[in-house]
Amino acid sequence: MGNADLDRPYEGAFVGGIHHFALRVYFEDTDAAGIVYYANYLRFIERARSDMLRVLGIDQRAAFEQGEGVYAVAELSIKYRAPARLDDTLLILSELGEIRAAALVIHQRVMRGDQILADASVTAALLTRDGRPKRQPRGWVEAYQRMKAKGD
Amino acid sequence: MGNADLDRPYEGAFVGGIHHFALRVYFEDTDAAGIVYYANYLRFIERARSDMLRVLGIDQRAAFEQGEGVYAVAELSIKYRAPARLDDTLLILSELGEIRAAALVIHQRVMRGDQILADASVTAALLTRDGRPKRQPRGWVEAYQRMKAKGD
Amino acid sequence: MGNADLDRPYEGAFVGGIHHFALRVYFEDTDAAGIVYYANYLRFIERARSDMLRVLGIDQRAAFEQGEGVYAVAELSIKYRAPARLDDTLLILSELGEIRAAALVIHQRVMRGDQILADASVTAALLTRDGRPKRQPRGWVEAYQRMKAKGD
Amino acid sequence: MGNADLDRPYEGAFVGGIHHFALRVYFEDTDAAGIVYYANYLRFIERARSDMLRVLGIDQRAAFEQGEGVYAVAELSIKYRAPARLDDTLLILSELGEIRAAALVIHQRVMRGDQILADASVTAALLTRDGRPKRQPRGWVEAYQRMKAKGD
Repeated sequence: MGNADLDRPYEGAFVGGIHHFALRVYFEDTDAAGIVYYANYLRFIERARSDMLRVLGIDQRAAFEQGEGVYAVAELSIKYRAPARLDDTLLILSELGEIRAAALVIHQRVMRGDQILADASVTAALLTRDGRPKRQPRGWVEAYQRMKAKGD
Repeated sequence: MGNADLDRPYEGAFVGGIHHFALRVYFEDTDAAGIVYYANYLRFIERARSDMLRVLGIDQRAAFEQGEGVYAVAELSIKYRAPARLDDTLLILSELGEIRAAALVIHQRVMRGDQILADASVTAALLTRDGRPKRQPRGWVEAYQRMKAKGD
Repeated sequence: MGNADLDRPYEGAFVGGIHHFALRVYFEDTDAAGIVYYANYLRFIERARSDMLRVLGIDQRAAFEQGEGVYAVAELSIKYRAPARLDDTLLILSELGEIRAAALVIHQRVMRGDQILADASVTAALLTRDGRPKRQPRGWVEAYQRMKAKGD
Repeated sequence: MGNADLDRPYEGAFVGGIHHFALRVYFEDTDAAGIVYYANYLRFIERARSDMLRVLGIDQRAAFEQGEGVYAVAELSIKYRAPARLDDTLLILSELGEIRAAALVIHQRVMRGDQILADASVTAALLTRDGRPKRQPRGWVEAYQRMKAKGD
């Protein structure tokens, strides 16, 4: 790896219709029970969703600053199947589910090798700065549809 | 409030069968969208569950250190209905649901005044240090059953 | 404690010129080494500083929303003397130090009973939304000076 | 990038005597003021230090589990020069400072391109599980000395 790569953060990518995002578990993620604290899986899968949007050409920060809306999670269900531990290397696999006018469903799995540690279903709703639902831009919806078609 | 109270942290309590736990939103809880970051609701409701156990006479730290087991969340579903913001005062209301041999279901609502900001259903499983399911001590189950009866 | 108190979050107060703020250590605060993760002491002392401002009549959220500025830490030094652990009850003692035109120095100690677990010196600078230094409002400076005089 | 790389988390490396570690800012890192919350820089620089140890062949998790000790920060000073924002790509540059019997000083800078956003000096002390100071293993000290010599 040259310095150019060394000095750039990790970026995920789609393989078929599945977005891959790898990360390592650090001390900040663990708790006194010696395992990853349950809320921190939500940080991990949010990083993967943000990376997924970036890969699809959606700039969340610009969208927010320009008043095009910001995604907020409206609904989440998650099953924790086995604990992750300090220094584990994890892989988040994300797939697009239902694409609604103002919301998007994403299915996400937290993997350690072949083992599923957690799987989640997340509904992200686009909101205005005032917190009202907002129709997703046509270009975003089309990008989701194209990517979802690759996974079918 | 005397200094004795001032120097002691907040403690929640049961009112009927419902555990009350109040907290304030600080900068650490918010994100660049100006609202509480979605994973941080899980920190809030975990504080409430830990306080609930303490009120019921269960010392999680001693239990863990003495090998009696530690609770880990096995399953969680949460609906985010309205965002909390910096400096909001929130109230977490927790009620015991199904009491199984090795797990406990807790229903939790995050309130701001009369408004429900989020509601969650959490399944907490008791685990050994090695991560295997463990039968909950009889005294704990009895404490849960007595408290649950008050709520019926 | 009546329900009115039960449903309100903890609030700190000044005793002489020293602001007291108590809190409990939860799982979220600890790491796999069994102790409070070092960055989380900064969350604790920020809660205390925010509470101190609130006690002094300064509404940080309104100030930010109305463009009166927001405090950002410009400089921090901290010594970690002994670790805090799960379920510890801690007390943050904060004292005003140097009061400059656009910045404020605060000395903060994290106590467990009579033991100092950490002590920190924090320089908080008032910034505009664009990140430029901003003169602190006269009313704020006077409140700091009055409170500091009580400690002398 | 092949899948083999895609599915592995980012790893930093030394360039001369300076350890490079890149990361991206996510929503979890920011606060309602629109910038990275001050405590989260400590999470960033800890990731870099953990990666630095891994590169030097030191397995912190194994060391902790086998009773060889765990590093805890004893002292930290940090200057925040300019704020990081959502989606920024940052680079943490870490250099070994003084190498003592039971502690290690590390100088760390948080860069965005050519701009220094923060710089910190961290003293990490090796502790036993009981929290007492512990002499660093000879092999670790030698690895630090070899790497430090490259930077001189």
